[in-house]
Amino acid sequence: MSAGACLWFTGLSGSGKTTTAEALLPMLEQRGRTVTMLDGDVVRTHLSRGLGFSREDRDENVRRVGYVAAEIVRHGGLVVCALVSPYRATRDEVRAMVDAAGGPGSFIEIHVDTPLEEVIARDVKGLYAAGTKQMTGLSDPYEPPLTPELTLETVERTVAQNAQQVLDYLVGRGLL
Amino acid sequence: MSAGACLWFTGLSGSGKTTTAEALLPMLEQRGRTVTMLDGDVVRTHLSRGLGFSREDRDENVRRVGYVAAEIVRHGGLVVCALVSPYRATRDEVRAMVDAAGGPGSFIEIHVDTPLEEVIARDVKGLYAAGTKQMTGLSDPYEPPLTPELTLETVERTVAQNAQQVLDYLVGRGLL
Repeated sequence: MSAGACLWFTGLSGSGKTTTAEALLPMLEQRGRTVTMLDGDVVRTHLSRGLGFSREDRDENVRRVGYVAAEIVRHGGLVVCALVSPYRATRDEVRAMVDAAGGPGSFIEIHVDTPLEEVIARDVKGLYAAGTKQMTGLSDPYEPPLTPELTLETVERTVAQNAQQVLDYLVGRGLL
Repeated sequence: MSAGACLWFTGLSGSGKTTTAEALLPMLEQRGRTVTMLDGDVVRTHLSRGLGFSREDRDENVRRVGYVAAEIVRHGGLVVCALVSPYRATRDEVRAMVDAAGGPGSFIEIHVDTPLEEVIARDVKGLYAAGTKQMTGLSDPYEPPLTPELTLETVERTVAQNAQQVLDYLVGRGLL
């Protein structure tokens, strides 16, 4: 059984979490790894119907994805999660669950550190301009990780460079 | 990577699905297999808050568990699911998802075939006597599998015998 790992991309909406994860996926698969992707679209389709955007519901959603990620890691699988996951305490709960299932170090927190003014300027999904209620970064807080395993910078660096940075980290850790 | 498989126990509430699965778990673990158990309790805690007992919600719940099971199987893991899962069409959807993830034959449907009069007589959780609304077998239908991989008889046979029958099946299939 190969070592399981959970790559957890966190950051503001529009920061580039899913984009970076999607650039990374084929690089992992080329190395023969099976990967499960749990991003907003997958989660809404398969796991979170009935949940909204209150803090309670967001936390439930993040924990639910964390539970699934932990079970995949328990079986030696590789899972890539890309969720805003704005609350530090909830991410730390997920870290504890995943590390309990797969061993210490299984949870790899990747902060996609795009500044608020940049995601507002890009506004890929039009959510910031639309005045969406309970928008992380505006009405709702985003609590950045204090000691993430990786921080990705997206203004000066490209998606391909960032995906490569994650890959290099995994190779360095002996996970690939 | 070992072959993944999903053991899907279906049957009336109180038929003995979880009891049989719990007897089987240590037998699987003794053979060195890591197992994820997804039964009613686990599912309510981690996956299904916000869902009720309408047909729509039951189906959503069964599909959600099926999604998680399929992802575990995709990574070569062994997952044991114990859910009433009353609707044949929905179970068949899950079969298709799991077989797509892990290859044909990954989904193993186990019908815990305890008759309605027997589960009413046992009434382990007091649900039948309580006149619970939307109770499978009373107000709501239970559609038994037409061609399950295994059928367990629980009136004449013990839990230990049934767990052994499942184990023997898995050995026979070369899955252990």
